[in-house]
Amino acid sequence: MEKIGRQVFLYDFYGELLTEHQKHVYEDVVLNDMSLSEIAEELGISRQGVHDLVKRCDKILAGYEEKLHLVERFWKTKEDVSKIRDLSLHYKEDCIAQTMEEINQISGRILEEL
Amino acid sequence: MEKIGRQVFLYDFYGELLTEHQKHVYEDVVLNDMSLSEIAEELGISRQGVHDLVKRCDKILAGYEEKLHLVERFWKTKEDVSKIRDLSLHYKEDCIAQTMEEINQISGRILEEL
Repeated sequence: MEKIGRQVFLYDFYGELLTEHQKHVYEDVVLNDMSLSEIAEELGISRQGVHDLVKRCDKILAGYEEKLHLVERFWKTKEDVSKIRDLSLHYKEDCIAQTMEEINQISGRILEEL
Repeated sequence: MEKIGRQVFLYDFYGELLTEHQKHVYEDVVLNDMSLSEIAEELGISRQGVHDLVKRCDKILAGYEEKLHLVERFWKTKEDVSKIRDLSLHYKEDCIAQTMEEINQISGRILEEL
């Protein structure tokens, strides 16, 4: 996963465990794509201060994922559900039984792993 | 969800955020179904001490869910995936297009919500 994508995912899952201040700055950088200088000026702290705060948040969020692996779990589920959707969209009339069997297998696997 | 089921789910999701000691006791009570007295004896602490520790863990785990709602998210996904599996198992030959459309709708909704 590319870095920004990963940051957004981790924030989506674990962001509520950050402080209000951390959330505010992290959102500005990662979701609102503001520059460190802009945020530094807005908050009246140094650019380096903002940089350190973002790094610290990255570390906290990555620490939660390292322990809980919930982003990874969701990600796998998402891939499997996408496969099911593809199968339901592009099925062939003469392979219905086989397609249904595939959907059944994938959904069974998701239920086991969730 | 019944209480034990809920405790097991919360522990499955957030258990790694407890200390080793908390995990040990909580697992004995919730997963291994040991009595408070048995655990108290094993650890050389009072029955009340074990009781308080379990309550504390309940509170910590519930606190994470209150902030993150990840058990709830997974639970909804699980229900939806179960519906898909049912559809793939009990489809009727003369309603294929409709069944596929339903599977497509449900999987699309899961992907939006995940």
